[in-house]
Amino acid sequence: MYRTHNCGELRIANINENITLSGWVKKIRNLGGMTFIDLRDRFGVTQLVFNMETHPEMCEQARNLGREFVITVKGIVTERSNKNKNVATGDIEIIVEELSLLNKSKLPPFTIENKTDGGEELRMKYRYLDLRRDVVREGLILRHKMAKEIRNFLDSKDFIEAETPVLIKSTPEGARDFIVPSRLNTGEFYALPQSPQVFKQLFMIAGFDRYYQLVKCFRDEDFRKDRQPEFTQIDCELSFIEQDDILNIFEGMVKHLFKTIKKIDLDNFKVLSYDDAINMYGTDKPDLRFDMKISNMNNIVKGLGFKVFDDSEYIGGICAKSCAKYSRKQLDKLTKFVRQEQIGAKGLVYVKCNEDGSYKSSVDKLYSQDELKKWAEKLNANSGDLLLLLSGDKRHTLNALSELRLEMASRLELLDNNKYSALWVVDFPLLDWDEENKRFHAMHHPFTSPKKEDLALLNSSPEKVKANAYDLVINGTEIGGGSIRIHDKELQHKMFKLLGFTEEEAESQFGFLMNAFTYGAPPHGGIAFGFDRLVALFNGSDSIRDVIAFPKNNSGRDIMINSPSTVDNEQLKNLNLKIN
Amino acid sequence: MYRTHNCGELRIANINENITLSGWVKKIRNLGGMTFIDLRDRFGVTQLVFNMETHPEMCEQARNLGREFVITVKGIVTERSNKNKNVATGDIEIIVEELSLLNKSKLPPFTIENKTDGGEELRMKYRYLDLRRDVVREGLILRHKMAKEIRNFLDSKDFIEAETPVLIKSTPEGARDFIVPSRLNTGEFYALPQSPQVFKQLFMIAGFDRYYQLVKCFRDEDFRKDRQPEFTQIDCELSFIEQDDILNIFEGMVKHLFKTIKKIDLDNFKVLSYDDAINMYGTDKPDLRFDMKISNMNNIVKGLGFKVFDDSEYIGGICAKSCAKYSRKQLDKLTKFVRQEQIGAKGLVYVKCNEDGSYKSSVDKLYSQDELKKWAEKLNANSGDLLLLLSGDKRHTLNALSELRLEMASRLELLDNNKYSALWVVDFPLLDWDEENKRFHAMHHPFTSPKKEDLALLNSSPEKVKANAYDLVINGTEIGGGSIRIHDKELQHKMFKLLGFTEEEAESQFGFLMNAFTYGAPPHGGIAFGFDRLVALFNGSDSIRDVIAFPKNNSGRDIMINSPSTVDNEQLKNLNLKIN
Repeated sequence: MYRTHNCGELRIANINENITLSGWVKKIRNLGGMTFIDLRDRFGVTQLVFNMETHPEMCEQARNLGREFVITVKGIVTERSNKNKNVATGDIEIIVEELSLLNKSKLPPFTIENKTDGGEELRMKYRYLDLRRDVVREGLILRHKMAKEIRNFLDSKDFIEAETPVLIKSTPEGARDFIVPSRLNTGEFYALPQSPQVFKQLFMIAGFDRYYQLVKCFRDEDFRKDRQPEFTQIDCELSFIEQDDILNIFEGMVKHLFKTIKKIDLDNFKVLSYDDAINMYGTDKPDLRFDMKISNMNNIVKGLGFKVFDDSEYIGGICAKSCAKYSRKQLDKLTKFVRQEQIGAKGLVYVKCNEDGSYKSSVDKLYSQDELKKWAEKLNANSGDLLLLLSGDKRHTLNALSELRLEMASRLELLDNNKYSALWVVDFPLLDWDEENKRFHAMHHPFTSPKKEDLALLNSSPEKVKANAYDLVINGTEIGGGSIRIHDKELQHKMFKLLGFTEEEAESQFGFLMNAFTYGAPPHGGIAFGFDRLVALFNGSDSIRDVIAFPKNNSGRDIMINSPSTVDNEQLKNLNLKIN
Repeated sequence: MYRTHNCGELRIANINENITLSGWVKKIRNLGGMTFIDLRDRFGVTQLVFNMETHPEMCEQARNLGREFVITVKGIVTERSNKNKNVATGDIEIIVEELSLLNKSKLPPFTIENKTDGGEELRMKYRYLDLRRDVVREGLILRHKMAKEIRNFLDSKDFIEAETPVLIKSTPEGARDFIVPSRLNTGEFYALPQSPQVFKQLFMIAGFDRYYQLVKCFRDEDFRKDRQPEFTQIDCELSFIEQDDILNIFEGMVKHLFKTIKKIDLDNFKVLSYDDAINMYGTDKPDLRFDMKISNMNNIVKGLGFKVFDDSEYIGGICAKSCAKYSRKQLDKLTKFVRQEQIGAKGLVYVKCNEDGSYKSSVDKLYSQDELKKWAEKLNANSGDLLLLLSGDKRHTLNALSELRLEMASRLELLDNNKYSALWVVDFPLLDWDEENKRFHAMHHPFTSPKKEDLALLNSSPEKVKANAYDLVINGTEIGGGSIRIHDKELQHKMFKLLGFTEEEAESQFGFLMNAFTYGAPPHGGIAFGFDRLVALFNGSDSIRDVIAFPKNNSGRDIMINSPSTVDNEQLKNLNLKIN
């Protein structure tokens, strides 16, 4: 037997018990006649004591162990004279009477401590050692607990968890599919699902009523920041349901998670229309942990002779509280920030609202004190505040203002990681115009239903049609999104047409779904959450990689197992494939 | 709002309530002035009443609905005069006051009833309609419940559910991999996992202690009876554990499932060594719902002049209770049965143990009554029983006897579908000699550890080495299997060598694992269960297809979505691939 107890459970109550423990050598300390070993397993750390006087040979053996050696010890639980309040087992230690070495260990390439000396590349190569660090393992245990609570919640609401196939069919719409050559049907391919979208809709048509699944999804993207080619989704769909019901149920789920996992009672979620989110925050994923709304300044600043503003489609501003004292250098830095390529503003106009009631701006020659006062009023500024204005075409300027808003929040330390502000963004546009290819894309996906009241616009001004679509945003991160779906063949057909599908493409790719609509499809809708992202949020991680056991790097490579890799010619021959 | 209640929950206590229901029209009956509709959803069926006198237009509309139309009704719950005890809602009906049509339905290609008129091909093509049948949906709800109870059990035993990657690396050992071309690393491929074997072992090396996962696995096999290219596994691994602990914990899990799902207290599982299973039942998956052991008859029947037996390596027999009265025709049928190609016996020797104490056999000219009496004694036969003997080489004859045993059990109606007999088969051989390729295969897999006491045989007689491997068999079906793993680099290395890996192959495919063993790998072992198979057993299904929402057919094709399918040339070009 390898153990009677784990390394985290012995207490004063166990004193004098004969026990057996197994685990890893975390630390060895030699103090004259005694040797102390911290023995670690998943459950904790227990102190072992070896006595040179009573067991000289064993003590010698203990001294020759190394970090991360695996051992089993038999011994007696004893009260410590020198208790350690920082460790759950700190009241006791084990007087060891028998020691067996189970496995040796080379010196790990980095220290197995929460603060490690290993860089990311090294830790990923030895991910099995990285996972030994408490802080990494705790993130994965958190993931397990969250999955459990999600299932508990959805099970209590009559959802059925059902599995959908991983080997499905490629559909060129959307992101790029990973494809899988079929050997039994040569020249043909499966694709890995980007989401189980059509299958969950088929479950609704099949009368499953409420479905969910924690499910792996796949996207063959060029790797952007913090994306993984495979990721996990909480995928849900409901029948006989309206948008408000869905927001209500899943607000409940997220609150349940915060309550059970983090002991936090979340406030009721705010709701913002897409248009309001864009106009007030410059983004459909606003961080509402702080206010700092954007104001449209057009009416106030235009037509007074400043050519830059007069020629701009849009001028917007924000008010940074208590930043009037910003130095020339700090303001130059901000200007540099907004001029970065990924933000793309041409310049920054500022107004300092001085403590004495006067205004000092970068456009003093063009605007009077009275005019600047109106700016301050529009932006609800007080003396001591700093106004920041950007101008240009509306879309890009709002986007730049959104970035500037986050930058100022960060400088003002308004991004409290222990504060959570959740928001539903609703009333998304149905379609998104792709100027380059002169065509519409579905803003959400091709199965999202237009608002009933906008149906008439589908022919005349499709770009104005709003969708029954919604996103959940927490602290500026999109955590989930969904929509009420189309359940009518004709409307779905029209939608495919708007998106530029030919009849043949629509039929060959989604014919089975449109056919299914003709056999009594119920009204239905759903939502999907990025599970990795949600766990990262709960874990306070910057990257989803922290909460994925074996993540891939930015080139989609698992550097531990060295994958992808070449395959045997025999394998390619069986698949009737050739590498060009 | 689509509904205040579902179609399965209204009772006498709801009488006089104004309710709204939505669902599918299951049946319409016109009875003079009244029209009755059975409205169905996942939760049940509720009877709707339309009155021609009070609501002539609506009643007319109701009469024109068709099967599987989707409707919403508002109405009042009323007590039925004619109660239906077979339906949970049978005490009430709804007097409908408002009817809305949500969606029409074409006439389904088969009836949506438990006993349907649709053949398998048609039902698979319209799987979303097949899934509407109660009996199919109940199988998937059972699957959901079983997954939940498995998680409950393992969570209570300190297991962590952790996800392993789906895009991994191809290893030619074992079954064929599905491979996935990488676009970002052209010429290279991921593979889909046949199981998360190496990752779960890495979790143990990472100190996770107890891991499980309900996980999709993939095998590109030529389709045999009731196999699917993707299937679901309950995958488990534990550290600091011995074989008995594993049997104990997972016997507990299976008992928990039977108890919570089927309300059955399962007997303690029998344990048989592989050798005993083969010798007593001719198979390592014996069905122990009935006895009918095989006996080795060599000592009794050989050397008495019957050339067929004298020349046979092995003669084995079984005793079929109360079958002495079998007719010539019945015996001819049995002979034909054992001569089938897939069973492959050359002939059948029978002995009838007559009621008068005499014996009548197909070898009366060769064996005396006294000799036949010894046969009967060896097989514990009573008068009225029938002895059946087969002969030939040991391996094939035992296999044929196993099939004959099952055939007789079926004829004797001993295969009670409501009886469950669970068995651990242990002490498997480590290696399996492949006569054709003159090499060893791993009986379980290359990571299975040999028994300590057999280690010395690894060099001299590897075929004699037993493994720390075990299978769970219920009613003759293999439900799960596992082993204590190798955790020592040298031993793993030796194992790969025995299996014919070159140094380079072992290093390039499993170098990361052997390297991981050198950083303090703990002793560990695990088990995996075929979840589809387990659900099918609980559901009384012959095929795992019954308990998979969207299964593939025998050519690996999903005929509903028509997958696999051809892909765009553009996609192949991006992957730098060409079809030969």
